[in-house]
Amino acid sequence: MRLATVMHQGRPRIGRVSDDARRIGLYEGEAALGLLPAIEAQARGTRWPEPVEDVALDPHALLAPLPRPRRNLFCVGRNYHAHAAELRDSVFKGSTAKVDAWPIVFTKVPETVIGPHAPVRLPGAAVSEQIDYEAELTVVIGRAGRNIARADALDHVFGYTIVNDVTARDVQMRHSQWDLGKSFDSFCPMGPWIVSADELAGQALRVRCFVNGELRQDASTSQFIFDIPTLIETCSRGITLLPGDIIATGTPAGVGMGMTPPRWLRAGDVVRAEVSGIGAIENRFVGEETPA
Amino acid sequence: MRLATVMHQGRPRIGRVSDDARRIGLYEGEAALGLLPAIEAQARGTRWPEPVEDVALDPHALLAPLPRPRRNLFCVGRNYHAHAAELRDSVFKGSTAKVDAWPIVFTKVPETVIGPHAPVRLPGAAVSEQIDYEAELTVVIGRAGRNIARADALDHVFGYTIVNDVTARDVQMRHSQWDLGKSFDSFCPMGPWIVSADELAGQALRVRCFVNGELRQDASTSQFIFDIPTLIETCSRGITLLPGDIIATGTPAGVGMGMTPPRWLRAGDVVRAEVSGIGAIENRFVGEETPA
Repeated sequence: MRLATVMHQGRPRIGRVSDDARRIGLYEGEAALGLLPAIEAQARGTRWPEPVEDVALDPHALLAPLPRPRRNLFCVGRNYHAHAAELRDSVFKGSTAKVDAWPIVFTKVPETVIGPHAPVRLPGAAVSEQIDYEAELTVVIGRAGRNIARADALDHVFGYTIVNDVTARDVQMRHSQWDLGKSFDSFCPMGPWIVSADELAGQALRVRCFVNGELRQDASTSQFIFDIPTLIETCSRGITLLPGDIIATGTPAGVGMGMTPPRWLRAGDVVRAEVSGIGAIENRFVGEETPA
Repeated sequence: MRLATVMHQGRPRIGRVSDDARRIGLYEGEAALGLLPAIEAQARGTRWPEPVEDVALDPHALLAPLPRPRRNLFCVGRNYHAHAAELRDSVFKGSTAKVDAWPIVFTKVPETVIGPHAPVRLPGAAVSEQIDYEAELTVVIGRAGRNIARADALDHVFGYTIVNDVTARDVQMRHSQWDLGKSFDSFCPMGPWIVSADELAGQALRVRCFVNGELRQDASTSQFIFDIPTLIETCSRGITLLPGDIIATGTPAGVGMGMTPPRWLRAGDVVRAEVSGIGAIENRFVGEETPA
């Protein structure tokens, strides 16, 4: 199933997207929190809902599938060797040098999340002029668990979506811990929908990112340093993972900061993040003063 | 006002604690989220509620004033020079060496929060054996704001409370980013209540921590490297702070990891965190298998 949150007749609704992505079968009721309550209900044993109304799907009416997560998103910081290398002397300078010892995990606040075609607001030059993109395959947790063993981890996955883990590089680095530079308002475009785990495996998906049509990132999740079961095992050590939790799996090489000279995002730029088997999100970056 | 969340006749309620702390004037209605909805309502212009029922206050019936924050807690990593020095070669080794350039800010998941007298669950030896305490003055935000200027910052404070920022040191360090090692279930005792900002200023409060009655931490918030207005300015750069947001202001020297040899917390230990003008929280650490 491809499951989406969509604005329909002025109200957020959730539903199941048709195979050709032209229609959506809406579930009953308003859905301010998107798919979160349905995922939680399924975890409690409630049967997944059936559509009550079939309507045309306007891609620009799509909201993030989880527009307001219950807590910060878990995000992995260094999960492709080529990306580890390109930021070795900048972002990862203070991190442990052993790239494959343990994953780096930081967070983004829930209020960063915006829809798959919504504008990302640049924070203004006084706050940061080093805005960068990071296309990422993203895991949505379906079943709660603590100290989840690697072998059981995939049983806890509800499905997969895409995020652009937008980052203010100067802010990320100057605070040593990254959460602030990752948490600016609107800095987490997400979508276009969640593909349920019964239809998609995360092991060998192509992750690409385009800036104004130019290919910048292109890798396969088969190149992960830490696979998805390891990430779930890691995040759940001592911490109960909850239905609707989000783990962004890290970004490939090719970010703007890795270039010489670095290439930062500017107002008017359009960033497209694609993951094979899921789809794409595409967001325009707008100036501080542009109405959202 | 001292504002608390308390379990009364099997239901969570909020109310106003009497001057002698022996009684509480309960507000109307159930309060699963503690004081959060009241703080949000006040931010929208609703008048603060009046008590409807005056009852005896049992300290052991107190819950955390904000038992389930809407997003991860913001926490400051290095805000006393003596603490910066004691962990210089361990926790802060990968951090920027300039202690007073910018605050280090990381997060704890909301589900870490427990009441001021609730047991902290040790995670088991397989997960971590380096459990440490951190007593901290904690700011509760009352009014939303983005890019808040230092001069205006105190207008955004609702009040102050206490947290023990319990930490798994090995986990904190091995992931380079600290969020995981700070986010174990039950690792954020909070309370005993919120003292509103009209009754208390955060500038010169004594912060102390006792382990089994032995004084371990003792400092004044007048020794902060970054004062509260600076912390609010920092956290709100590009990020809209929201009513009910929590900023733990950092811990004084004297943590277990700073000792030679380090002294980790064990099952049966009781940790008391005190802040002058607020009160104290006191929590027993229990083994993995002990029922909560």
